[in-house]
Amino acid sequence: PANKKLLVLPGDGIGPEVMGEVRRVIDWMAHRRSLSFEIDEGLVGGAAIDALGSPCPDETVAKAKSADAVLFGSVGGPKWDSLPFEQRPELGILRLRKDLGLFANLRPAVVLDPLVEASSLKADVVRGVDIMVVRETVGGVYFGEPRGVEKLPDGRRRGFDTQVYVEDEIARVARVAFDLARKRRNKVTSVEKANVMQSGRLWRAVVGEVQKAEYPDVQLENMYADNCAMQLCSRPKQFDVILGDNLFGDVLSDLAAALTGSLGMLPSATLGAVDPTTGKRHALYEPIHGSAPDIAGKGVANPCAQMLSFAMLLRWSFGLEEDARLLETAIEKVLAGGLRTADIMQAGMARVGTSVMGEAVVREL
Amino acid sequence: PANKKLLVLPGDGIGPEVMGEVRRVIDWMAHRRSLSFEIDEGLVGGAAIDALGSPCPDETVAKAKSADAVLFGSVGGPKWDSLPFEQRPELGILRLRKDLGLFANLRPAVVLDPLVEASSLKADVVRGVDIMVVRETVGGVYFGEPRGVEKLPDGRRRGFDTQVYVEDEIARVARVAFDLARKRRNKVTSVEKANVMQSGRLWRAVVGEVQKAEYPDVQLENMYADNCAMQLCSRPKQFDVILGDNLFGDVLSDLAAALTGSLGMLPSATLGAVDPTTGKRHALYEPIHGSAPDIAGKGVANPCAQMLSFAMLLRWSFGLEEDARLLETAIEKVLAGGLRTADIMQAGMARVGTSVMGEAVVREL
Ligand SMILES: CC(C)[C@H](C(=O)O)[C@@H](O)C(=O)O
Ligand SMILES: CC(C)[C@H](C(=O)O)[C@@H](O)C(=O)O
Repeated sequence: PANKKLLVLPGDGIGPEVMGEVRRVIDWMAHRRSLSFEIDEGLVGGAAIDALGSPCPDETVAKAKSADAVLFGSVGGPKWDSLPFEQRPELGILRLRKDLGLFANLRPAVVLDPLVEASSLKADVVRGVDIMVVRETVGGVYFGEPRGVEKLPDGRRRGFDTQVYVEDEIARVARVAFDLARKRRNKVTSVEKANVMQSGRLWRAVVGEVQKAEYPDVQLENMYADNCAMQLCSRPKQFDVILGDNLFGDVLSDLAAALTGSLGMLPSATLGAVDPTTGKRHALYEPIHGSAPDIAGKGVANPCAQMLSFAMLLRWSFGLEEDARLLETAIEKVLAGGLRTADIMQAGMARVGTSVMGEAVVREL
Repeated sequence: PANKKLLVLPGDGIGPEVMGEVRRVIDWMAHRRSLSFEIDEGLVGGAAIDALGSPCPDETVAKAKSADAVLFGSVGGPKWDSLPFEQRPELGILRLRKDLGLFANLRPAVVLDPLVEASSLKADVVRGVDIMVVRETVGGVYFGEPRGVEKLPDGRRRGFDTQVYVEDEIARVARVAFDLARKRRNKVTSVEKANVMQSGRLWRAVVGEVQKAEYPDVQLENMYADNCAMQLCSRPKQFDVILGDNLFGDVLSDLAAALTGSLGMLPSATLGAVDPTTGKRHALYEPIHGSAPDIAGKGVANPCAQMLSFAMLLRWSFGLEEDARLLETAIEKVLAGGLRTADIMQAGMARVGTSVMGEAVVREL
């Protein structure tokens, strides 16, 4: 098959370490599964600030645009915490989302059987939880204009942002959620505050229209965001796909991730629109965890989320379902065999570091 | 002592039932503790829509303004779900907050020892949790202008809201949080998305300034809202006071409530500014739970949250600390004695309805 162009952006903190373990998996796949990738590497986040003075240099954006898929590590750290708003490492990921039109963030929150006990929730509340949060990522209050901090005539400061959605921005991400639900348990819970926000009112209306016109076979439930946070905590099994805007999706996807108790295990994908002529779509894959500066460089980080992000990449960007499953199964088996990194350590298991975990997965493959 | 003017607004659903049990407590206090209240009653929510065509009639606002404290039930129900945005029952509470200047919503999330097992979280994760969420309630994206759903020239709909804070709106609610922390475990966790929102950037700056200038003895921690949702779920005991804006405070206070597993037990207070001449402040007290239309009228609702809201009222509006503690202790004892309403039912306990629970509390008093 034609070469698959992959851009690797390790970023900061534990990003480079965990990405190193994915490299082993890629090597294995190249040799044993005859998958040939054309791999480029780029700078993002603090690493890019240090080298090039910008958290997301034009060069990185250009590379990302010409790649078939981007594998992203994580960005940020205390070193860059005092930089002004416009120069922070987080802008790396924000700009990539925006410039590549990556509007749909897919965040699975799955409780694997061997890790049921890692959760802070009771075993019978979380056993079998399998939620997919679909978060809109290029609109809403994180990007809306006008925004700023200004001085009022009387000297007081006023900070403001604009929460805004046009109907087709809502419809396209809703379609991603409904499509996913069809391959899962056929239910979408759409989340907003339609009772107090005008954008929420439009969100609810448009999602309902899309469902009625195009997905009458999928069950749609509307839920207020505050209630959804409650329900996630108390009865998470009721959810299949959760659909939310940039802000509610951000908070609720992190909550869904947290209830699994194994953040170091969770990948995500952010997808753009399908190009009607080429059939391709931009896509970026990244673990849910951050750059974890406190443990960076110590060789103790869990590489699984980054590896599982690569599995998502195989599935979504290259249609390599079988290879994706192979990798996912290998990771599950390694866990079932008792290996644990520090973040998911349990009594009776064997505590290992980043590279032993990575090696074990490759051996299992 | 002079008469204490109390406005009772039972509202919809289970509101009137659970308020009935508070009436017994008030009667008991009048007779046994010589507390004389001057009690007025008013309409709000769906009940007010049905009777007077508005979810918050001017008459109700006027009564609330002249009362020393408002005891609120809950509003809403399927009957009014199809009403347009501007006429919904929820506007009852929104308008009261706004017109009375009730800017600080205090929401305790406490795990009582006899109810540890009611939580969906593991016992050792939640035992001893005692969090106070302070939510700003008259500003931010639930009120900011401009807002609306408009048609673009090309016919597409655009929904928008404005997230906005002026610095003194932030400072005054921060002071409420710091004052509370001083009486508790001396720590405030202030929550925003300063990494992506301009209003969040101002929020973080102002809270920091207030702490530095006026509360150098209180520990201040800044946390992103998504991370806070995670931390609440995985390690709730780290929190003392959580301070958030209208939106983040809404979602996170509900999450904090949910992790206790006993929504039917949780009260809240919403306070206005202290009037410099009279020393008084407007205040409204309400349970965290909603109107629960599915169980309304069945006599099975848990009256404890409404009773505990009354305890908060005694404490905050009338300085009756001893009477508040009396009531809280009576409720704890009834629970320790094994009585449970359906929502907090556990094996081995005695399941009772609304009025048996209310009677038991009065007997315990
Ligand atoms: C780093 C930050 C800008 C980002 C966001 O809020 O979108 C992160 O929290 C995420 O969830 O991907
Ligand atoms: C009823 C609704 C408008 C309200 C809010 O969002 O403020 C409620 O959710 C609350 O938390 O008190």
